[in-house]
Amino acid sequence: MSLKRQVRILGIDDSPFDFRCEKALVVGVVARLPMYIEGIMRTEVQVDGSDANEAIIAMVGRSRYREQLRLILFDGVAVGGFNVVNINKIHQETGIPCATVTREMPDFERMEAALQAHFPDWEERLKVIKRNPLFKVGPRKRSIYATIAGMDAETLELILKECTVQGRLPEPLRIAHLIASAMIRGESHGRA
Amino acid sequence: MSLKRQVRILGIDDSPFDFRCEKALVVGVVARLPMYIEGIMRTEVQVDGSDANEAIIAMVGRSRYREQLRLILFDGVAVGGFNVVNINKIHQETGIPCATVTREMPDFERMEAALQAHFPDWEERLKVIKRNPLFKVGPRKRSIYATIAGMDAETLELILKECTVQGRLPEPLRIAHLIASAMIRGESHGRA
Repeated sequence: MSLKRQVRILGIDDSPFDFRCEKALVVGVVARLPMYIEGIMRTEVQVDGSDANEAIIAMVGRSRYREQLRLILFDGVAVGGFNVVNINKIHQETGIPCATVTREMPDFERMEAALQAHFPDWEERLKVIKRNPLFKVGPRKRSIYATIAGMDAETLELILKECTVQGRLPEPLRIAHLIASAMIRGESHGRA
Repeated sequence: MSLKRQVRILGIDDSPFDFRCEKALVVGVVARLPMYIEGIMRTEVQVDGSDANEAIIAMVGRSRYREQLRLILFDGVAVGGFNVVNINKIHQETGIPCATVTREMPDFERMEAALQAHFPDWEERLKVIKRNPLFKVGPRKRSIYATIAGMDAETLELILKECTVQGRLPEPLRIAHLIASAMIRGESHGRA
């Protein structure tokens, strides 16, 4: 199995923030595989709010790339703290397959405790986070954990393989992280 | 002649602005040749102000990449309107060679008229703009106009050749433009 030429994907990551901030910056990078950056977009979400899905669906909806995107890729299950990303909903509303990736296995127990301590609607948030089964993709020493909506695991693996250059993080997510952290801190810093 | 491995360059471009804005965003992209993006930085300058050199020297001075940069590349002779970039001064203060590139031959007469109409210090600004001779680099149909301080034309040409993928604009400048315009407009747009 191989990918068609000219496949475009959107990688989304959020900026660092501290608790004085009400908003976090969310940056999307459109890449044509394997790694040609074609476009960049931005939106913002409330830190620990519930507007991530709405903001991301609107950002994609007004993008000139919306018809061409084959996948929306998220770094983790939330943006701006615990503003949870619902990939099933985003897939349904945009028609574009969605996936999350994380380098470390998420610690659901710790996440549950944190949610329970801070959010009246913690059960709802946790349900979205746990809805899609987590699976490993990639070669053993460079594998990454993923969830997916609207695409099969084999296709996701092909796409990730093609757009990962160094380390385990696909280029669109790595670049989105560099941009978001540079805009807030003055210079990019650290791993996505 | 060939380039050493691991050469890092910084490409700088500014955001679009309108005349309600007092500040323009300036974005720097650190690339390891040929085109691996390692870091991103930002600063801001006054629209039509005189603080571009100071802001850029400070941004480079606080960057973790400052010791590794072999070249600072600018898209054109000014940022934020007519906030003129003095590559000789920036080269002198940072110790890093600097160059400007533009795809079109600048129209100095028109520039002079605009400066004269709007700036009491128009002669000073024009002197900086005209100080370094403009020369063509690159293959005939994809050539670009450049000025340079602290580097020979042959080395600049090698670097530009290596980091230009599509069209005539080197990748660090193309990406810096996409970022700066996306941050201001919501989505990147147009040519740098």
